[in-house]
Amino acid sequence: MNIRFYNARILPMEKADATVIEGELWVENGRIAYLGDPGKTEKPAFDREIDCRGNLLLPGFKNAHTHSAMTFLRSFADDKPLHNWLHEDVFPMEAHLTGDDIYALTKLAVLEYLSGGTTAAFDMYYHVDRIAECARDTGFRFVICGAANDYGGTAESTRRDYEALNAFDPLVSCRLGFHAEYTTNESLLKDLAALAEELKAPVFTHLAETRAEVDDCVNRTGMSPIAYLDSLGMFRYGGGGFHMVHLLDGDLEIIKKRGLYVCTNPSSNVKLSSGVAPVETYYREGVPVAIGTDGPASNNCLDMFREMFLVTGLQKLTVGADAADPVKVLHSACSVGANMMGLDDCDCLAVGKQADIVMLDMHMPNMQPINSVAKNVVYSGSKANVALTMVAGRILYERGRYTFDVDPEAVYAKANEIITRIRIMEGR
Amino acid sequence: MNIRFYNARILPMEKADATVIEGELWVENGRIAYLGDPGKTEKPAFDREIDCRGNLLLPGFKNAHTHSAMTFLRSFADDKPLHNWLHEDVFPMEAHLTGDDIYALTKLAVLEYLSGGTTAAFDMYYHVDRIAECARDTGFRFVICGAANDYGGTAESTRRDYEALNAFDPLVSCRLGFHAEYTTNESLLKDLAALAEELKAPVFTHLAETRAEVDDCVNRTGMSPIAYLDSLGMFRYGGGGFHMVHLLDGDLEIIKKRGLYVCTNPSSNVKLSSGVAPVETYYREGVPVAIGTDGPASNNCLDMFREMFLVTGLQKLTVGADAADPVKVLHSACSVGANMMGLDDCDCLAVGKQADIVMLDMHMPNMQPINSVAKNVVYSGSKANVALTMVAGRILYERGRYTFDVDPEAVYAKANEIITRIRIMEGR
Repeated sequence: MNIRFYNARILPMEKADATVIEGELWVENGRIAYLGDPGKTEKPAFDREIDCRGNLLLPGFKNAHTHSAMTFLRSFADDKPLHNWLHEDVFPMEAHLTGDDIYALTKLAVLEYLSGGTTAAFDMYYHVDRIAECARDTGFRFVICGAANDYGGTAESTRRDYEALNAFDPLVSCRLGFHAEYTTNESLLKDLAALAEELKAPVFTHLAETRAEVDDCVNRTGMSPIAYLDSLGMFRYGGGGFHMVHLLDGDLEIIKKRGLYVCTNPSSNVKLSSGVAPVETYYREGVPVAIGTDGPASNNCLDMFREMFLVTGLQKLTVGADAADPVKVLHSACSVGANMMGLDDCDCLAVGKQADIVMLDMHMPNMQPINSVAKNVVYSGSKANVALTMVAGRILYERGRYTFDVDPEAVYAKANEIITRIRIMEGR
Repeated sequence: MNIRFYNARILPMEKADATVIEGELWVENGRIAYLGDPGKTEKPAFDREIDCRGNLLLPGFKNAHTHSAMTFLRSFADDKPLHNWLHEDVFPMEAHLTGDDIYALTKLAVLEYLSGGTTAAFDMYYHVDRIAECARDTGFRFVICGAANDYGGTAESTRRDYEALNAFDPLVSCRLGFHAEYTTNESLLKDLAALAEELKAPVFTHLAETRAEVDDCVNRTGMSPIAYLDSLGMFRYGGGGFHMVHLLDGDLEIIKKRGLYVCTNPSSNVKLSSGVAPVETYYREGVPVAIGTDGPASNNCLDMFREMFLVTGLQKLTVGADAADPVKVLHSACSVGANMMGLDDCDCLAVGKQADIVMLDMHMPNMQPINSVAKNVVYSGSKANVALTMVAGRILYERGRYTFDVDPEAVYAKANEIITRIRIMEGR
């Protein structure tokens, strides 16, 4: 499908810059073939021409940390701090999930991502082959993060997944990872560090999420989780941490030295009472910041608009009203997340890049008047503004409808069936 | 119009209780005529019958503190703390607004309220006759709060507005109020207290919003703003405060003794770096808590879903993961706000109450699976779920369309014209 968008406002987001281009964007063979003013005359043959009526095209949001299949626990596991939430609600319920469940529950998350303008997710869960199938079957882009820990996974299985997933489908890729320092013994951590060294690959993990995690690691190892993992050689080829709320002295230097990415997850951090990540410090120090929703059991939605407002809002609350510039936050959501996930081809709107695009409807009251397009998106935008979501040049969602082969009602019914079955098994 | 909703999930919200009724709701002559199971056979003649397909009916959200016409400053005045934001951006720009401007800009806000399921707003602004006209012309419900202060308004003008607005139209009412302690001299405050005494009426105002406001009042009067106003007899007949972020010792006792309402505005409080209101304390102490967006220049949207998540999220962050029960928060948004505004007829879904109703679409991925209807609304709901908004028995918004006599594009054009004109006048 070759598609022409015209009469568009375009926020390319090549850098944290709110400059809007008014003109056209052409998609050919899944990539952006032209972007600029409408004067250009030699047009290729288009399968479809979309009059944007001044609506906004920007790079799709990159959800840089999530556990998609946890949709089944939405509004089930709530109102507890992380440790209790994990051990009392999440782990016992998750133990009953089958591969088929994970495929179905991930598909529910994909519907939600698309309805909110998200075009790729950095997913950490198990039965990773089924997540990959879900990407292939829906057209959504998944980057899968290794999740090895003491309850499952080895360096060997991590390598197998890494190789298989990176060869599976252009919409799927895999990055090395493990669940967290606090769930992974040192022997396995060393094996994973050796694997990272061998593959010259970055490594990603839950990191410095709660004060208790950091204190406990200090008590056991004499080091912060960041320093401890770095001492094992984990970040020789970079990588990043999800959450990164609680830093100790010296952590920032390691983050900068290793070129680590931070993915902040503010909804989850407030809901689990974990704290506020020092995002303004990261911005000031040049640390690349991506944004994620975390899983739908701790958030409970998969809505990058909510996360963007919270990223800036929580910094303003804790640092000052001028903290966390909204244009930087938008760049984090659209672009930095892509770079963290290894999707350098999806990080902005430019000729040759993947056509991973969202169109936001500006003809809605929350987007008017237009004093600043970018600030409207971050401060007052909502998923209700998402008019169209395109991944790899395919329109997957448009004006409330899913335009690929899926029956949403069947997806909802299946999710309800799964949680009902597991509640009965667990007697709750 | 008599309207029958059937196959509905209904959250009546008579109290903070998440019990869902499955059945029907009938609207006759603007009020709820029946609510219950579908077994009842004697049906009146309906003008329209709506198959809700399991979608959720709940009382419309009450935006209990806003400055609607400030839409013109959306994404214009940002990233500053309250004092600078007011004096550098807001006051100079507002000085150019005409009555016609306020009518047009309020209409833009009404479109946004309706698209987000809000059925009434407690508005504080000037040219109040034009706000009232806007209610009459759109069908939206406005409660107008007096805004007298040193820059405009007297006890006499407050009384005139009070009498005129309360007689103007069933959709319009007025409550006594003034802008804030820090913008109103003691002589005017005493006049307003005497007026409240004479009318036996509650009084509402911006109160304890920032630390600086409280400190300054203590320096001048030796008392907190709450204690100072109470010492003038302001709250003899109750009333309430907008924001109520910073309490001093003794304030809570005054709040409880006078039966004051609190309206919390978390988006505005984070964005202006004002702080986190002690909402969990208010809940624990039985203080009635309503929720507002504040104006669109400090928020910048008028979206009660965002506010609800922030109310609970900020309490979880600062108090603990079990704070600010989501059902209580939903009750605050739908019901307590109505009581604060004097709309006791609009506070829940029950026979005889005003038909101020929102229908939320549950057939969307963020609402699935349905482990808890109420938690889904608060934790993962979005204005994208708003399928229908009804005020006083009239459907004003349905599936993205406004069903009263309005041209949204003309409203947007007018708002852009106003801000452009004022920017030119101010040379910015």
